[in-house]
Amino acid sequence: MTSQYGLPTDKTYARAGFGAAVDRGARPAIVVVDLTNGFTDPDAPTGADLTDVVAATSDLITAGRAAGVPVVFTTIAYTPAETESVVWLRKAPGMAALREGSPAVAIDDRLPRTDADHLITKKGASAFFGTTLAALLAGLTVDTAVVCGATTSGCVRATAVDAVQSGFSVLVPRECVGDRAAGPHDANLFDIQAKYGDVIDVREAIEYLNGLRGDAVTAR
Amino acid sequence: MTSQYGLPTDKTYARAGFGAAVDRGARPAIVVVDLTNGFTDPDAPTGADLTDVVAATSDLITAGRAAGVPVVFTTIAYTPAETESVVWLRKAPGMAALREGSPAVAIDDRLPRTDADHLITKKGASAFFGTTLAALLAGLTVDTAVVCGATTSGCVRATAVDAVQSGFSVLVPRECVGDRAAGPHDANLFDIQAKYGDVIDVREAIEYLNGLRGDAVTAR
Amino acid sequence: MTSQYGLPTDKTYARAGFGAAVDRGARPAIVVVDLTNGFTDPDAPTGADLTDVVAATSDLITAGRAAGVPVVFTTIAYTPAETESVVWLRKAPGMAALREGSPAVAIDDRLPRTDADHLITKKGASAFFGTTLAALLAGLTVDTAVVCGATTSGCVRATAVDAVQSGFSVLVPRECVGDRAAGPHDANLFDIQAKYGDVIDVREAIEYLNGLRGDAVTAR
Amino acid sequence: MTSQYGLPTDKTYARAGFGAAVDRGARPAIVVVDLTNGFTDPDAPTGADLTDVVAATSDLITAGRAAGVPVVFTTIAYTPAETESVVWLRKAPGMAALREGSPAVAIDDRLPRTDADHLITKKGASAFFGTTLAALLAGLTVDTAVVCGATTSGCVRATAVDAVQSGFSVLVPRECVGDRAAGPHDANLFDIQAKYGDVIDVREAIEYLNGLRGDAVTAR
Repeated sequence: MTSQYGLPTDKTYARAGFGAAVDRGARPAIVVVDLTNGFTDPDAPTGADLTDVVAATSDLITAGRAAGVPVVFTTIAYTPAETESVVWLRKAPGMAALREGSPAVAIDDRLPRTDADHLITKKGASAFFGTTLAALLAGLTVDTAVVCGATTSGCVRATAVDAVQSGFSVLVPRECVGDRAAGPHDANLFDIQAKYGDVIDVREAIEYLNGLRGDAVTAR
Repeated sequence: MTSQYGLPTDKTYARAGFGAAVDRGARPAIVVVDLTNGFTDPDAPTGADLTDVVAATSDLITAGRAAGVPVVFTTIAYTPAETESVVWLRKAPGMAALREGSPAVAIDDRLPRTDADHLITKKGASAFFGTTLAALLAGLTVDTAVVCGATTSGCVRATAVDAVQSGFSVLVPRECVGDRAAGPHDANLFDIQAKYGDVIDVREAIEYLNGLRGDAVTAR
Repeated sequence: MTSQYGLPTDKTYARAGFGAAVDRGARPAIVVVDLTNGFTDPDAPTGADLTDVVAATSDLITAGRAAGVPVVFTTIAYTPAETESVVWLRKAPGMAALREGSPAVAIDDRLPRTDADHLITKKGASAFFGTTLAALLAGLTVDTAVVCGATTSGCVRATAVDAVQSGFSVLVPRECVGDRAAGPHDANLFDIQAKYGDVIDVREAIEYLNGLRGDAVTAR
Repeated sequence: MTSQYGLPTDKTYARAGFGAAVDRGARPAIVVVDLTNGFTDPDAPTGADLTDVVAATSDLITAGRAAGVPVVFTTIAYTPAETESVVWLRKAPGMAALREGSPAVAIDDRLPRTDADHLITKKGASAFFGTTLAALLAGLTVDTAVVCGATTSGCVRATAVDAVQSGFSVLVPRECVGDRAAGPHDANLFDIQAKYGDVIDVREAIEYLNGLRGDAVTAR
């Protein structure tokens, strides 16, 4: 890619002051965006085969749990009344299949979820919009959001943007996010790395979690 | 681009139920994102040559004003204390050049701005995040946000996502948005058209505004 | 009550410019705050006898429904994980009894609720905080929120403040709100009338709804 | 005051589970609400004589600064366009005198303010609504908001409610908040103490700040 200055995009972005490394804080949380059956079941119209994403995210959660890191799952789910009124569904009518109480909105049971984990029900792309996620993380004095899930070009991107706007460092382990198509996936990882958070290997993310004091977050 | 199903991305997206046309409401507002000198001056490190974007947006504003459509300009501007504390600036330190009171944060004076227009100062990517923009638009019973400005892959994208999440139909006239580099610009217009709003020609946007009753919005 | 100037409070407030009458808009919504069993059952520790409030609110809803006015119910409900982490519950630990799925968080079935009505689950005092209520109302181009429910000094007050901040005129029919004790009830109606919305008789509220075109809101 | 059960209000509130003591966190911030000339100048229509409040708040800030505690000032200020469109100003038209750039919206210069302090411009009652205050506090991993300022029954109350909803423990030093009239002042301190935060003596607040490690907050 070249920019309008004839420079490669990376040089244009360096000139603009993007892409610095973010802080890896002492008190992270893991935010697992929309790894519900509606997104992880390849037979669902809104789904894709995210087997590898689910596996990598499971490894990350296991590492985080050992360090006392809070885990937050999100799901999109609509009431019948919302199906008629949420403006986003006019642009993305396929999302209206995500009906409250249906299997499509349940968290994929391959993920290691416990009762201690949080479940946030959302109505839009971002896990922060119209939810108490920012308040929850602030109440836990979390400083870093490790964002996983689907889709990279939709809810993950929107969540990463809102996480940093909300005052949290953002890490996105690349193996822990997935999408329906490669082009938007790659383009959004590029944008996230440039502007909103650090896109890292899941191995690096797990080492970071392993390096925390085991009582880092729960000890408050 | 092909999706993970071997389908072209457009067929995968049609299957998922994306890309429907949004309502063109009777009470739009024009939201002009960050067409400040810091973004429109090609000599500014954070800037680019957005002469064509400024010209197309000026035409759109002129059409909107004749129809009584509210116009909202946004700027990013930081106090010295914010420069030290806003977490986003650790990832995007170049943005810290946008100091409150400096020429970089002033709206580009080629735009036809009046005292009746709104000016929203923001601290993040989205024009809605940490601002009263949603409340302002609700108070005017606006139903549609026509989003212009810069950059397509940053603040315009974030604003489009938040606009539809906030309950407003989103229209993005493609000539009225610009970026530093073509790749992210195109990729984000693709995402917006698929998931958040209609990317349309500025000619279509102006015809839509011309077709409104002249007192549509101000008459409330 | 006297103010620090030796003036009666009403004269001090008139000098400060409070208490003007708000617009009764053409597109209201009815917001019924927390009329769940946990609040309306006098045997619940968090409850009170709100029989009259439920009756007056039912009359109001019936009038609104005939005019096509949207109705939104709210409930406070916590997951086990939230019970441990929501900071508000440290100040108000009694609220932790409002467990997701329990009878305490179900809407009082004396109210005329239908599947077309909205149900917003909240975690704090305000019906707007951490919810999509503002986006829902904006998406319906609502201009006026008629706020009912319990308690006047808690969630009703917080909802009224957020409603006007969010861009909606606020009407509070006095017979449709209730509390556990008379002092806080009266003091908060005083504050609401002075600063946030019009406290009116339910008869006036019903006449207002009866005067709307029957298709006012649903026709959009 | 008696409740509807014939119990004194305090027993009714104890039964409901209100009024528990909140955590005094290791990382507080001081939030000074609207101690601008428009509120502290008794000759301003919206003002009152808050000399004692300004003095007590100054002492608190001095103690906080020695402990490295962040200080945030807020002001309400409107552009001409906002004066015409902010819905709150229809109920409280006197607030429209708080024009951007006027002396009325400047922080009272008796307060010990420095360039390191934050200044948040708001458009409504709450210091959190339509601002980046929650994000700022989260980014500083603040856990406790010490709320000062004016008026107790308006912006202080609204800020206290939003602070705890946003995940922060709330402390309100009673000498550091003031109002135009005694009745609403007392009634709102009652509500805050019961439901949102601890109303404490300024002496206790200063001792708490003195007891912090000097580098508690700035060291992150």
